[in-house]
Amino acid sequence: MAQKFTTREEDYSKWYNELVGRADLAEHSDVRGCMVIKPYGYAIWEKMKEILDKKFKETGHSNAYFPLFIPKSYLSKEASHVEGFAKECAVVTHYRLKDDGEGGVMVDPDAKLEEELIVRPTSETIIWNSYKNWIQSYRDLPILINQWANVVRWEMRTRLFLRTAEFLWQEGHTAHATKKEAIAEAEQMLEVYADFAEQYMAMPVIKGLKSESERFAGAEETYCIEAMMQDGKALQAGTSHFLGQNFAKAFDVKFSDKEGKLDHVWATSWGVSTRLMGALIMTHSDDEGLVLPPALAPIQVAIIPIYKGEEQLTMITEKITPVINALRSKGISVKFDDDDNRRPGWKFAEYEAKGVPVRVAIGQRDLDNGKAEVARRDTKEKNVVDFEGVEQYIENLLEEIQKNLFDKAKTFSIENIRNVETYEEFKTVLEENGGFISAHWDGSKETEEKIKNETKATIRCIPLDAKEENGKCMVTGKPSNKRVIFAKAY
Amino acid sequence: MAQKFTTREEDYSKWYNELVGRADLAEHSDVRGCMVIKPYGYAIWEKMKEILDKKFKETGHSNAYFPLFIPKSYLSKEASHVEGFAKECAVVTHYRLKDDGEGGVMVDPDAKLEEELIVRPTSETIIWNSYKNWIQSYRDLPILINQWANVVRWEMRTRLFLRTAEFLWQEGHTAHATKKEAIAEAEQMLEVYADFAEQYMAMPVIKGLKSESERFAGAEETYCIEAMMQDGKALQAGTSHFLGQNFAKAFDVKFSDKEGKLDHVWATSWGVSTRLMGALIMTHSDDEGLVLPPALAPIQVAIIPIYKGEEQLTMITEKITPVINALRSKGISVKFDDDDNRRPGWKFAEYEAKGVPVRVAIGQRDLDNGKAEVARRDTKEKNVVDFEGVEQYIENLLEEIQKNLFDKAKTFSIENIRNVETYEEFKTVLEENGGFISAHWDGSKETEEKIKNETKATIRCIPLDAKEENGKCMVTGKPSNKRVIFAKAY
Repeated sequence: MAQKFTTREEDYSKWYNELVGRADLAEHSDVRGCMVIKPYGYAIWEKMKEILDKKFKETGHSNAYFPLFIPKSYLSKEASHVEGFAKECAVVTHYRLKDDGEGGVMVDPDAKLEEELIVRPTSETIIWNSYKNWIQSYRDLPILINQWANVVRWEMRTRLFLRTAEFLWQEGHTAHATKKEAIAEAEQMLEVYADFAEQYMAMPVIKGLKSESERFAGAEETYCIEAMMQDGKALQAGTSHFLGQNFAKAFDVKFSDKEGKLDHVWATSWGVSTRLMGALIMTHSDDEGLVLPPALAPIQVAIIPIYKGEEQLTMITEKITPVINALRSKGISVKFDDDDNRRPGWKFAEYEAKGVPVRVAIGQRDLDNGKAEVARRDTKEKNVVDFEGVEQYIENLLEEIQKNLFDKAKTFSIENIRNVETYEEFKTVLEENGGFISAHWDGSKETEEKIKNETKATIRCIPLDAKEENGKCMVTGKPSNKRVIFAKAY
Repeated sequence: MAQKFTTREEDYSKWYNELVGRADLAEHSDVRGCMVIKPYGYAIWEKMKEILDKKFKETGHSNAYFPLFIPKSYLSKEASHVEGFAKECAVVTHYRLKDDGEGGVMVDPDAKLEEELIVRPTSETIIWNSYKNWIQSYRDLPILINQWANVVRWEMRTRLFLRTAEFLWQEGHTAHATKKEAIAEAEQMLEVYADFAEQYMAMPVIKGLKSESERFAGAEETYCIEAMMQDGKALQAGTSHFLGQNFAKAFDVKFSDKEGKLDHVWATSWGVSTRLMGALIMTHSDDEGLVLPPALAPIQVAIIPIYKGEEQLTMITEKITPVINALRSKGISVKFDDDDNRRPGWKFAEYEAKGVPVRVAIGQRDLDNGKAEVARRDTKEKNVVDFEGVEQYIENLLEEIQKNLFDKAKTFSIENIRNVETYEEFKTVLEENGGFISAHWDGSKETEEKIKNETKATIRCIPLDAKEENGKCMVTGKPSNKRVIFAKAY
C-alpha cells in the first residue's frame, strides 16, 4: 500500500492518468480510443445524469431517442456543420459478415450499403430531419427535447474522459417560433449548466460567448462555461448554442404562425458529456487521489470498524447501526465496510484514493470512551468526536466540505486570472503563471489565429459579465471595448 | 377526431402500427431499420428503466459502460457465439470522410481500419475481454455489472419496438467463482424480470427454459419469460443465460480460489429491451388506443376543466388545485390540461389514445353539485363522484386498474393455453385457436425443426413448473416426461 504515485508537481498529466486508474474510474479498452467506464466512475456519472435530468425536466424538457446512424448526405446539408463534423467519423459501409472459411469471419462484400452511415458525432442533422415532419404550425412549438446518448468522434490522441472516440453525453435540441425565445432557451440552459457546475461539482465557471472561430459548427452564437483546472489550463465544461434558422433552412422546417404566415423555425442545441468527469477530477483531487464533492459522491460516508474477533465486531456493529440508519434516512449514502478480507489500513487508503468525503473509524477504545474518529477527505483533518450527535456532526461536515471545495477552487481561479495590457506581458504571464488571462483583442480572426499559433492560447470566451472599457488590442493596438479570456485549454 | 382506425379484429398488425403512431410512441426514421422513440414513448421506457435499475441495484448490481465497437476478431472467439451474432451486423470500415469536390462528402479511402469494428449486437465478447484484466483471485468475484446501452442487429423487416436494427436495452454480465452461484444468479434475474412483468407491466408470463436450438448463442442454458399477446402469439419478454465457462475459456479468464487452485470463471448474462414496449402495447391496448397499467403511465391522471371564459376556469382551477396537490404528494402524476387551444373532446380522445389510466372532467355544473366525472381507461366506465374524497377514490381506482389489467390478461392467457395429445390436434388448435399449446415432445432437434417448418410454431419454453408426467411425443410417439409450450411467436 505504500506504493508511490506521481504527484501533480512532478507530472500533472501522469498524475491524472494514474488517478483515474487507482480510483477505479475508467480504463482504456482494446478498441482504439474507446474507454470502459468502471462501476465507480459510472456511479459518479449517474449522479451527474440524475441531477441534470431533473433540471432539464424542471425547465420543461422531455427525453427522446434518435438513431445512432446518420446517412452520409445529411452531414452536408448544413454548410458549416459539415466542415466541423464530417471529418473524423466512424463510417459504416457494410451490414453483414460471413464465414471466412478459416474459422473466422470476414466482411461480406455483397452487403455493401448504398449510402454509407456515419455513427453520430452529434445529432442536429438526424433530429432536424425528424422535426421537419413534426412541425407545421405554431401550435407544435416549442419542441423541447433532450437525448442521453453515446456519440463517436474519431480521435488519434485520447485521454480518459477528456478526449475519447466514443463518449457519453446529453444533447438538447429545441425548436422555437421566435428568435427571442430561442436565445432565451440557449441562455437558460447555460444557466442550468453553470448552476450544476457550481452547486454540485463545486467547480466555479466563467460564463461567456465563444469567438466566431471557436463556435459550434452551424451555430450563430455559442454560449459556454469555462472552468480552470489545477494546472491553470481551461476546460470547456458545457456549451449551449443558438443555431438561428440554419438547421431549419437546411432541412426545410417551416411553421405557420397565428396569422398563417410561413417562417423557418428557430433552434438551439446544448450539451455536456463525460468530459465533466475529467473536469471534476482535475478541479479538486490531490496527490493522494480523487477528492469528490459530497453532492456527487456515490459513497458519502465510509464507516470502518477496527476490531479483533467476532465479538468486538458485533459490539461495534450494534453501536453504529442506529447512526447508519439515521444518516441514510437523511438521504446520506453510507458504506459500512466490515469486509474481513481487508485490513483497516488498506480500507483507509482505498477510500482516500476514491475521494469518499467522510471516513469514520470506530474501535474498541472509541466504544469505551463514547467517541468516534471522523476524518474529512478534503483537508485530511481528523477529529475524535462524541458518539452522541455524530449524525448531526457528519451532516454538517458534508455541507462544509461541499462549501470548502467550492471556495478553495474559487480562490484558486480568482488568483489565477490576470489582466495584461501588452502581448509581451501576455506571453510572459502565460509562460510563467499560466491560468486565465484577461486582455483586449481587436475582434479579428487573424489576430486570434496569430496568438494561437504563437502561444497555443485560445480565446476561451468573451465573458457575459465583461465590463465595457476602452482599450487597445494587445497585439495590433486596434480599439477594443471589452476584455476576453485567453488560456491554454484541454 | 372521428377518424376511423383499424381494429384488432380487422387487421391486428395494422392496428398495432397505427396505435404506435396515434399514441405518439415512436416512428420509423429515414435510416433503414432505426426508430425514433418519441417523448411519450420514451417516458414509458424511462419508467421501465427506473424500476428495473432499482431492482438490479437491490440485488447487488452496479452499472458500467463498455465500448460500442467490437473488433471483428472478438466475435469469432466463442465458437457458437459467432454463429449466432456474426451475421447481420453494422460494420465500421473507415474512420474519416473528406470533401468530394462537389459540395458533399465521401469516405476517405486512405482512412481504412486495419481491423473492422462491429457495432455491438451484444457485449459478451468486449466485456469478457475486460474481465480478463479484472479477475485474478476469488477476492475479485463475483462481478455483478449491468449496462444500459444501444445495440444494433441488422434487420431486413422491421416493426417499431418489436424488431428494429437499433434498439435500447440493458445487459447484465456477471462473473462467479462457482457454477452453482452462476446458476443462482441467472435464476434470480429471471425472477426479477418475471416480477417486473407481472407487478408493473401487469403482464402474466410463463417462466421456462429454452430448448437447445432456441438458446442464446454461447449459453449452456437460457431461462426466459414468455408472454401471450392478444392475438395469441408469444412474445419473449426477457432472457437470462447461464453461460457456463464458455466465455471465460474463450477469453482466458481464470481465478485462483482460496487454496490457490486456478479455474475458469463462471458467467451469466441477461437482458430486456425496448421490445418490452411492444409487449406492453399488445397485452392491454384496445381499438381506441393504448391502455397503460398505472405503474408505468407517465401521466396517471388527466384532469380536464370544461369551461366557458376565464372566470369559470379560475373557479374550477381553485377548486381542483388542492386535489392535484394531494394526488401529487402521494406520488401520483397528474396533468391538469387547461390548454385553451384544444377543445375538451379533442383532449378526451387524446388521453384515451395515449392510455392515460384515469381521466377527470369537471365543469360548472359539477362545481355547483360538488361532483366530478371520473373515467377509467381500462373498462371505459364513467362515474360521477363526490368531490369530497375524490383523491382517495382516484388512488383506489389506480390500484384497481392495475389489478384489473393483470387479471384480465391472466384470464386471457389461461383460456388460451391448451393441452393437446396428437400432432393433428396440434395443427387444428394452432390454426383455429392459436395461443399457447402444451404438448409432449421427444426432446430432439429434428422433431422441433419439423414442427417449426410445418406449422411455424416454435417451442417457447419448457416451463419451470412443468409437472413430471409420462407421455409420448405428439409427432414421433417417443417417450416424454413433461409437456413443453409451443406457439407462433413475435
